[in-house]
Amino acid sequence: MLHGLYLMALVAEAMSAALAAGRRDMDWFGVAMLGSITALGGGSCRDILLGRHPLSWVAHPSLLLLTGGAALGTVLIARHVARLHRTFLLLDAVGLVVFTLIGCDLARAMGLSVAVAVVSGMITGCFGGVLRDILCNEVPLLFRSEIYASVSLAVGMLYLGALRFGVPHDITVVAAMVAGLGLRLTAIARGWAFPVFRWRGA
Amino acid sequence: MLHGLYLMALVAEAMSAALAAGRRDMDWFGVAMLGSITALGGGSCRDILLGRHPLSWVAHPSLLLLTGGAALGTVLIARHVARLHRTFLLLDAVGLVVFTLIGCDLARAMGLSVAVAVVSGMITGCFGGVLRDILCNEVPLLFRSEIYASVSLAVGMLYLGALRFGVPHDITVVAAMVAGLGLRLTAIARGWAFPVFRWRGA
Amino acid sequence: MLHGLYLMALVAEAMSAALAAGRRDMDWFGVAMLGSITALGGGSCRDILLGRHPLSWVAHPSLLLLTGGAALGTVLIARHVARLHRTFLLLDAVGLVVFTLIGCDLARAMGLSVAVAVVSGMITGCFGGVLRDILCNEVPLLFRSEIYASVSLAVGMLYLGALRFGVPHDITVVAAMVAGLGLRLTAIARGWAFPVFRWRGA
Repeated sequence: MLHGLYLMALVAEAMSAALAAGRRDMDWFGVAMLGSITALGGGSCRDILLGRHPLSWVAHPSLLLLTGGAALGTVLIARHVARLHRTFLLLDAVGLVVFTLIGCDLARAMGLSVAVAVVSGMITGCFGGVLRDILCNEVPLLFRSEIYASVSLAVGMLYLGALRFGVPHDITVVAAMVAGLGLRLTAIARGWAFPVFRWRGA
Repeated sequence: MLHGLYLMALVAEAMSAALAAGRRDMDWFGVAMLGSITALGGGSCRDILLGRHPLSWVAHPSLLLLTGGAALGTVLIARHVARLHRTFLLLDAVGLVVFTLIGCDLARAMGLSVAVAVVSGMITGCFGGVLRDILCNEVPLLFRSEIYASVSLAVGMLYLGALRFGVPHDITVVAAMVAGLGLRLTAIARGWAFPVFRWRGA
Repeated sequence: MLHGLYLMALVAEAMSAALAAGRRDMDWFGVAMLGSITALGGGSCRDILLGRHPLSWVAHPSLLLLTGGAALGTVLIARHVARLHRTFLLLDAVGLVVFTLIGCDLARAMGLSVAVAVVSGMITGCFGGVLRDILCNEVPLLFRSEIYASVSLAVGMLYLGALRFGVPHDITVVAAMVAGLGLRLTAIARGWAFPVFRWRGA
């Protein structure tokens, strides 16, 4: 089930990235590349930082077709995608949680500490969007606003904490999913945000 | 012959990067660094993504001197370099094809799939320029316009396809070179470009 | 002693990065992340480029708390931190030299050539700031002005040269420290800078 959600989240991330590419007037080739880099970039960053090879798309090049194709398809149906704004926020939230759990699991399988596993989950969940914003020449949204990386942090801590206390894996996954989705969607609905640090001094 | 073309392409990429640095008022030290990063960055990205060590400039540090020196030299002769605009477009096209072939060959030597080898060629050929544009605080040209990454894609597919069908290596290299240069230079001359995806919605 | 200076330099880099985050109106979570990435990013870039694992913060996750916490703390005392502008320039200069020496030492321990060891020192000393500037959507300061990367280059060459000529390690470290600090602080005081390459042609 996680694998199905993973593929769906990849597609959703690639489609959102395609809209970001359209805001920057990228050409179709650029749309496909930005889609793939955004969707697969978080996991690739994690693997490079942890020294884990081969990367997902090196082992499974079909992921490049899936994400690049999803981004290209978005060009054709952009009007409808935009109308499905809420659906995409939901899919993006699902992706954030699923990517986080995958990142935690991979770090655990490498025998890394709980702290690094939590960070591994955050990188997997969030850094694709950071790469997208860098390539779109923007200050990454992740650093500026929204309860996003912190949802990933909370999900990772809940997940790894529960596993450590012996809660069965399936129950833990479902609990982390429910808690993560609930937190993220409530944050969007209520406009929750961390305080901003505004500094204009030297 | 490929090795000679490779060194020449490194120099040409470093010199073009120096002009980009000059557009951003970088100092001489920055010019040299941007030249090296641009010229050697595509291959370094490829090796990091594929988990291949040591990187080219770690094994051959003289490449740092060559590229940094070429960029610095460009400061002195910028006026003449700009007059040689057409020559540089040609050298850049040669570099794109040579870097692509090298990227494909290295991935093949690692036993990676044809699809990954094609992507390896594209990263080798194109990502130095992406790093240059990120460091110059611009949306990478690669995503916005021009038939550039797609030339790399076509060259890689032609090259690896011909090798698979048993065409001798030397003939394949020459054919890929002719086809790639022809495609790239025709695209420049005719102003070919992919359609742009312009999106201003939510 | 180097280890104590290393931790102090990490804290100083994270605090400076927090002020940069405040100039971009990042939220508190973003401040902490930018602080960690800036302080630990130079060493992480070096290790990824040299293929050296695990990264420092993977082996010692407490470094993430230290740097993220230092950045967060800066939010509370930003007014005082700004008043300590000169102290921070000093701490930053100490950090530049210490990071450079550590980068040189690690490359030497890997058996890499002197040239690569010098570059390893520069990357360790300078690339955290490059990552910070990219994430703040600015052309990296490193490329535009100031005697900064060149101090790192000079320190690395002096350090490795002296070691090669058989000067004892402790004396070499102190000499490199004095020379590097002297050069950097003099450069700041006198406003030394490399000439800028300004180019507006094609």
